[in-house]
Amino acid sequence: MRVYDIILKKRNGERLSKEEINFMIEGYCKEEIPDYQMAAFLMAVYFQGMSPEEATDLTMAMVNSGDRVDLKAIAGFKVDKHSTGGVGDTTTLVLGPIVAAAGGKVAKMTGRGLGHTGGTIDKLESIPGFRTSLTMEEFTENVNRIGLALMGQTKELAPADKRIYALRDVTATVDSTPLIAGSILSKKLAAGSDGIVLDVKTGSGAFMVKYEDALALAEAMVAIGEGAGKRMVALITSMEEPLGQAIGNAIEVKEAIDTLKGEGPKDLEELCIELGANMLLISEVVRNLKEARERLREVIENRKGLEKLKEMVKTQGGDPKAIDDPSLLPQCKERIEVESLGEGYVQKIDAFSVGVSSQVLGAGRQKKEDVIDSSVGVLLKKKIGDKVKAGEPLAIFHTDGDRKKIENAKEKFLASYSIGKEKVKKPKFFYARVTKKGVEEL
Amino acid sequence: MRVYDIILKKRNGERLSKEEINFMIEGYCKEEIPDYQMAAFLMAVYFQGMSPEEATDLTMAMVNSGDRVDLKAIAGFKVDKHSTGGVGDTTTLVLGPIVAAAGGKVAKMTGRGLGHTGGTIDKLESIPGFRTSLTMEEFTENVNRIGLALMGQTKELAPADKRIYALRDVTATVDSTPLIAGSILSKKLAAGSDGIVLDVKTGSGAFMVKYEDALALAEAMVAIGEGAGKRMVALITSMEEPLGQAIGNAIEVKEAIDTLKGEGPKDLEELCIELGANMLLISEVVRNLKEARERLREVIENRKGLEKLKEMVKTQGGDPKAIDDPSLLPQCKERIEVESLGEGYVQKIDAFSVGVSSQVLGAGRQKKEDVIDSSVGVLLKKKIGDKVKAGEPLAIFHTDGDRKKIENAKEKFLASYSIGKEKVKKPKFFYARVTKKGVEEL
Repeated sequence: MRVYDIILKKRNGERLSKEEINFMIEGYCKEEIPDYQMAAFLMAVYFQGMSPEEATDLTMAMVNSGDRVDLKAIAGFKVDKHSTGGVGDTTTLVLGPIVAAAGGKVAKMTGRGLGHTGGTIDKLESIPGFRTSLTMEEFTENVNRIGLALMGQTKELAPADKRIYALRDVTATVDSTPLIAGSILSKKLAAGSDGIVLDVKTGSGAFMVKYEDALALAEAMVAIGEGAGKRMVALITSMEEPLGQAIGNAIEVKEAIDTLKGEGPKDLEELCIELGANMLLISEVVRNLKEARERLREVIENRKGLEKLKEMVKTQGGDPKAIDDPSLLPQCKERIEVESLGEGYVQKIDAFSVGVSSQVLGAGRQKKEDVIDSSVGVLLKKKIGDKVKAGEPLAIFHTDGDRKKIENAKEKFLASYSIGKEKVKKPKFFYARVTKKGVEEL
Repeated sequence: MRVYDIILKKRNGERLSKEEINFMIEGYCKEEIPDYQMAAFLMAVYFQGMSPEEATDLTMAMVNSGDRVDLKAIAGFKVDKHSTGGVGDTTTLVLGPIVAAAGGKVAKMTGRGLGHTGGTIDKLESIPGFRTSLTMEEFTENVNRIGLALMGQTKELAPADKRIYALRDVTATVDSTPLIAGSILSKKLAAGSDGIVLDVKTGSGAFMVKYEDALALAEAMVAIGEGAGKRMVALITSMEEPLGQAIGNAIEVKEAIDTLKGEGPKDLEELCIELGANMLLISEVVRNLKEARERLREVIENRKGLEKLKEMVKTQGGDPKAIDDPSLLPQCKERIEVESLGEGYVQKIDAFSVGVSSQVLGAGRQKKEDVIDSSVGVLLKKKIGDKVKAGEPLAIFHTDGDRKKIENAKEKFLASYSIGKEKVKKPKFFYARVTKKGVEEL
């Protein structure tokens, strides 16, 4: 087998065998295949795409390049969730507890964030005492006992993906559907769950702006995961504006707590119920989605979800009182109202810019080494379709009092809102549900 | 300016500016741009192509990466010729003398061959005493005096092309029209002539098998050359079978001598007259192609072309008696008739395989270090459309007597001939003439 022939074959639009794909990935990991041949190959994949079988083979080759998390010690069906990212995405902190409270098993390894806010691990660490480093024994034991554990990724999952991603990043080959799908799923498949529910975002604030691209990615991921023997569902949901109201770390934990009480933002609650319902369905804890939704609404109403969060916090060394009394979470120095300059209805919100303004306040990292300030962030007061008067607050900034940061963030934030005279509808939120059986528009 | 943005732009099918292309080529030469980014860029060019302006900019960037031959000391219009390669291509040895005899100025730098036979330099070196290394002073003086000089390439012409070609060769990005055109023309433009006539081969024995591909290459090269201020003509000609009869070194020199006497193979003679006519036309030595052809036929009939060859040989230290008496050229040890197994008409000849059989006999190099045997090669006795009886010779092998080589070459050679019952026509030879005014089908 020769690398040249494999590049040529892909360039010419032919399908690659599993052996050829393994040869490429293994050879690249062993540094027997140089970067320049991999770069040419990736660009050929960008143009020619990959069949579902090829994409599965690529993903599995990347999974096999590193460690795999062994969850056999956990009884029953383990279900995971992954979101393709967006702004103000607090879902995991709500989903984990309600799904576990409703009978699912959630054993989730997750990373730190690089971007406008921290990752789930950073958010959890804003709870006093909470430990995100567990041994594998603690991790599996906790899930067996309470149905839920969230920990930082310790093992080297899919190192081939890491190397290939770094190369894609400098060769303009990031936005290729099979490569994105493979990159996401290689880490997810290595993380050991039996089923995965994907939240694929689309809209102006998402990586996949166009619905068609999000759909293609969702279909590719479902096909890859099913090809690898997992149960898969993908929901395509809107990211035309930030999800919920909070964009930060402690303030997102607070928002999750509110949502677990049924007092959170409705878009966040609905998204958690839909994702959770699909997690319960593939876990075979329920017979259908309707039953699943009912159960999830029930664990919100009777606060069993909130209890589950407290149970997890306690199990992982955190202070459960902070869940009952969120004022025990890190509090910012100064709250600042950001007032609307214009008057009318919110037409559009550039979610990405809102994220950047939260990052500027200190909620996110620009470089890996940056330290996050858990207490800061942006709390939205107006979303698309809302009526707003001049001088009325669009948001509350939670800040450390640094004027320069505040001014900078304010400028970015105000530029992200379009306010106009015309009445506008709330954007459509749920687009489609994708399973191995096909696409169901919602 | 960032490499990433340039790759992305090309990947997305946008046009690059001259500055962007210079940035890529200069950065690559200075090793500031790594191979992997250049590889991704080249694959993007493979898929998205280049506009004529971009291809000219790329070519000029490669020209500017190295030395340029200065032919200013030669009075008048200097004309060059380039063939995209084929099997048994003796044209330069005929063309140079007849064009110079008819009043053109041919100052040609040429390389050694890597392939089925030697390059023009290797062929010339089979003439006893002939020197292919000249000083630039000798080179320009000779052309001023006798209108013709052929020398080995000494300067480093277009080193960027050399590096980029090596990368294309291992990343499956060789067969891209603008990249091929740029690679050929960068060396030709650096070689300093004022006009270039291109012989673009098409057919089963050519690099561009399909006419459309050859046409695209011809158009690209004409546009690039004109864009660089040169007068350009391209002829698209057939390579469905080897050109002429001889495939070797000394035997090709002998064939050139025969052709200069009007006693050579007709396909070779006609090709030389057409290429030469276009060389004279762009040199403005004649008013039109008809007049040019008449002049060239005249210098063949009155042997002034042959005299010119002798004059050049003498000027460059060779023995002119070898031109009068080709038995003074290197002679092989043993001639062997290769007999036809079948009977009927020659339907097809795989020119490439015939070339390989000549290489096996010792006429060509597989590696740069290989030493060529000037005396050996293949002399065809039958070409497409010819009638042949079983046992009749298809070719005469000129060999060094080595049985193993002979058997090996015979096997390759016989496999390259298809003989069948049906009468077949000679393949069409001249397809099209391409100038900046457009394509004229022939």
